Amino acid sequence: MSHPRVRDHRLSHRVRYHECDAQGRVHHAHYLHYFENGRVELMRANARSYKDFEASGLMLVIKKMEVDYLVPAEFDDLLEIWTCVEKSKGARIIHRYEIQRAESLIVRGISEIGCIDRNGAVKRLPDFLQWSDL
Amino acid sequence: MSHPRVRDHRLSHRVRYHECDAQGRVHHAHYLHYFENGRVELMRANARSYKDFEASGLMLVIKKMEVDYLVPAEFDDLLEIWTCVEKSKGARIIHRYEIQRAESLIVRGISEIGCIDRNGAVKRLPDFLQWSDL
Amino acid sequence: MSHPRVRDHRLSHRVRYHECDAQGRVHHAHYLHYFENGRVELMRANARSYKDFEASGLMLVIKKMEVDYLVPAEFDDLLEIWTCVEKSKGARIIHRYEIQRAESLIVRGISEIGCIDRNGAVKRLPDFLQWSDL
Amino acid sequence: MSHPRVRDHRLSHRVRYHECDAQGRVHHAHYLHYFENGRVELMRANARSYKDFEASGLMLVIKKMEVDYLVPAEFDDLLEIWTCVEKSKGARIIHRYEIQRAESLIVRGISEIGCIDRNGAVKRLPDFLQWSDL
Repeated sequence: MSHPRVRDHRLSHRVRYHECDAQGRVHHAHYLHYFENGRVELMRANARSYKDFEASGLMLVIKKMEVDYLVPAEFDDLLEIWTCVEKSKGARIIHRYEIQRAESLIVRGISEIGCIDRNGAVKRLPDFLQWSDL
Repeated sequence: MSHPRVRDHRLSHRVRYHECDAQGRVHHAHYLHYFENGRVELMRANARSYKDFEASGLMLVIKKMEVDYLVPAEFDDLLEIWTCVEKSKGARIIHRYEIQRAESLIVRGISEIGCIDRNGAVKRLPDFLQWSDL
Repeated sequence: MSHPRVRDHRLSHRVRYHECDAQGRVHHAHYLHYFENGRVELMRANARSYKDFEASGLMLVIKKMEVDYLVPAEFDDLLEIWTCVEKSKGARIIHRYEIQRAESLIVRGISEIGCIDRNGAVKRLPDFLQWSDL
Repeated sequence: MSHPRVRDHRLSHRVRYHECDAQGRVHHAHYLHYFENGRVELMRANARSYKDFEASGLMLVIKKMEVDYLVPAEFDDLLEIWTCVEKSKGARIIHRYEIQRAESLIVRGISEIGCIDRNGAVKRLPDFLQWSDL
């Protein structure tokens, strides 16, 4: 690409009613959806579509996920989801995530993702996803 | 099949924490998952697997859904999901559903399902799903 | 309110990866979440917050839901969710919904909602939700 | 309790259609629901109900979650969810989880949970959840 790639991305998300559990807080599993949305939009910010990526026969699959839940988020909160490529080489990407509500850090995460084809064979990431300099 | 087919099925379900919303009740969208589980288990009660059905190249897709929400269900309630074939002919199945907690009728539903192939073309239901006499 | 109330609202939604099922299409239960988001944003368009509404001790609960699934939506589709008050009187609101992707009508729905307090007793809707002239 | 407490529990789970994503595999966020079901059933195996626990004014909230995704699970797979108290003292419980399909280890997890009241204040776990000897 002629324009510079971006390693990180900020996405706004308004917490939805069905994302909250009986404690009136965002259910802890939903943050994994927020991270996923962050990765999809980071790819779009680099002028690539994850839909096209899967149509090409490749898939990104989660290998490892770590989440620290610091402060609860509630229905209707306006969150900012920050997604960042920490490392990307070979068939593997490490992302970091931070989710904030105004000045409060709500959740922090880190994931490892692998690239495979439809048969489950490990595949080298396409060049546009490699960051050899990280 | 040599053994008689069954038109209806009863499935037990314990309400899970993540299925409840901030009102402390089962979120209304989850009843559609309960109905879906009911259809899958009704097929299994007839010695067929919906997984194999999709592997054969066919899919069942929801065309229409009507739900009456009568009494709220809560976390940890033990529900009974009753699923019944009302009509099944050509490429179309009508199911009826009732979900009860002990003597209380919680939810009542009716759905229309179509049979298609992977390209979206309408397909005749296989014989084991046809009930010409209903 | 001094400014005129709005009866309907249009909301954009990009389909998320986790909203799609093994058929690669939006799972049919997720449209109920889309309708719910539509109702929340319609209330906000009238300068009211559903969060405050529940904080006041009232809740809106789904009594009836009908959905027609016309065309499947897929991952990353950009949808427009149209939500409209059809009738609103006493303790009951009828909404209509249409979800479109460009010119295609994807899903059409209608719901009946009741107003209750925390003990489950039926309550008259507050004036800002009444439309006596519909 | 007069009968001995159990530290771990095995729960069977049949993968449901709506738990699978467009890759035809269990979406990675659903394993957090499986872990949650495991914790609820482990408490029930000790003759306690998490519903009663919340009714008493306490809540268990996730502080930290780590998951290793080893092998994908698919629709209709029969999984076994093993949940184990690793440590439990003061206001904090560490659980370990393993999810298997026959001989295959699918997912491994570890979580840290805190005990709070409805105002968010940290509270000592009740005795029946304390394992001072671990």
